[in-house]
Amino acid sequence: MTPGLVVFVGAGPGAADLITLRGARALAHADVVLFDALTDPALRDIAPRARWVHVGKRGFEDSTQQAAINALLVKHAQTGQTVVRLKGGDPSVFGRLEEELEALADAGIACEVVPGVTAALAAAADSQRPLTRRGTGRSVSLSTAMTRESELRSSRTADTEVFYMAGKQLAALARRLLAAGWSSQTPVSVVSRAGWLDSLQSDHSVASLGHAAMLHAGRPSVVTVGVGALPVAGQPPIGRLPTAVQRPLETRRHELAQTKP
Amino acid sequence: MTPGLVVFVGAGPGAADLITLRGARALAHADVVLFDALTDPALRDIAPRARWVHVGKRGFEDSTQQAAINALLVKHAQTGQTVVRLKGGDPSVFGRLEEELEALADAGIACEVVPGVTAALAAAADSQRPLTRRGTGRSVSLSTAMTRESELRSSRTADTEVFYMAGKQLAALARRLLAAGWSSQTPVSVVSRAGWLDSLQSDHSVASLGHAAMLHAGRPSVVTVGVGALPVAGQPPIGRLPTAVQRPLETRRHELAQTKP
Repeated sequence: MTPGLVVFVGAGPGAADLITLRGARALAHADVVLFDALTDPALRDIAPRARWVHVGKRGFEDSTQQAAINALLVKHAQTGQTVVRLKGGDPSVFGRLEEELEALADAGIACEVVPGVTAALAAAADSQRPLTRRGTGRSVSLSTAMTRESELRSSRTADTEVFYMAGKQLAALARRLLAAGWSSQTPVSVVSRAGWLDSLQSDHSVASLGHAAMLHAGRPSVVTVGVGALPVAGQPPIGRLPTAVQRPLETRRHELAQTKP
Repeated sequence: MTPGLVVFVGAGPGAADLITLRGARALAHADVVLFDALTDPALRDIAPRARWVHVGKRGFEDSTQQAAINALLVKHAQTGQTVVRLKGGDPSVFGRLEEELEALADAGIACEVVPGVTAALAAAADSQRPLTRRGTGRSVSLSTAMTRESELRSSRTADTEVFYMAGKQLAALARRLLAAGWSSQTPVSVVSRAGWLDSLQSDHSVASLGHAAMLHAGRPSVVTVGVGALPVAGQPPIGRLPTAVQRPLETRRHELAQTKP
């Protein structure tokens, strides 16, 4: 039997229409789709003939679960099927891609990786706050607020720093940011459910970042610190802390949808 | 007259099929598309009814040119048209988005930003080298090798650092990396024309990075330094310097295309 193929596809931050055309085409050709949690059900419409297998991992997945996913990938590919491994965001950024590529290399199975929109980019787009700024914002760093050992990390290494998966740890992240040398008045933008119609953005400072926790509770959040958190000059002002103001981001998207029939 | 709308769309790294579905839909609804150089002509098929206006900027664009682009955006939107401003990669990363958003805010014109795949992600996908690695690669930084003042910068701030627009300055970048504290044996992966069928990847060390210049001459390149430059364990070995080995990346993509009729 001809061995199958595994295509890793970045689904983007969640909403189905932020997948790439190449990713959508891979889905349309898939026999099996292995997917995590947090995926827009509308993605299923792109791959109606595929078998969808939920292998959801959330937060601190354990190695047993990863081994099971690796084994499933190999098993399906070895029966000659075209397997799409659908990952949130971009597969190469906090996607645990390495372990799965290793398992497939060990089994001699060909792979393809289709990139996707990582959450930091969707948060910047929704909030219209570019991560790089002329003259002042020349570097961007992406990191998780938590290490594998559940130890909260922070740093001050780039003009703009974006933290993934910081949701429940915002007050602790703020303390670490101060310890890393960021001033208490450094602007911080928190965006939850980036890319979705109900995306929310709020403005904070490092000192008051903890206030964002309740606002974005239960919603996947991205925390942007530094120059890239600032609103663009001339844009409508957004309310300031201590009353973090929610900014409904769906407005512009609805306008867009209604622009043309 | 109802004012128009400007939609900034990240086209991805170049190949038309790396645009998002949302970006493609915005193109399909556009009256006018303002685009830069380096864009896949196949994108035009997505917006056949739009007027395509080339506002190409390359390298060190001057402020005069930026002002002209700003004025064009405002002019077209003020006549009630739906304008797509198509940008390579992601608009929020090295896309000069801030200036254009400011000009539109000043004119009171509504905007939307659709994120895209930034080049670092496409390079990681093509080379199957995840930017984050379990335990060892927890942070990624994105920066340009050149500042606006054409002064070459480098740093050692994250486990993996990705440099954009380093093409002609690789030997100089290597010297700066050494000065920033990276060891001469640090792995470096260079990918040019990421996301395209003729994408090329080569392996180097910081010490020998200069050798990549001829190999990738004239092709937009991304330089990845550190943990994220390492091949995944078990994957077929890639030739080592001093004879930088070109790795044809189209192979897997052709396999994929032929998998299904």
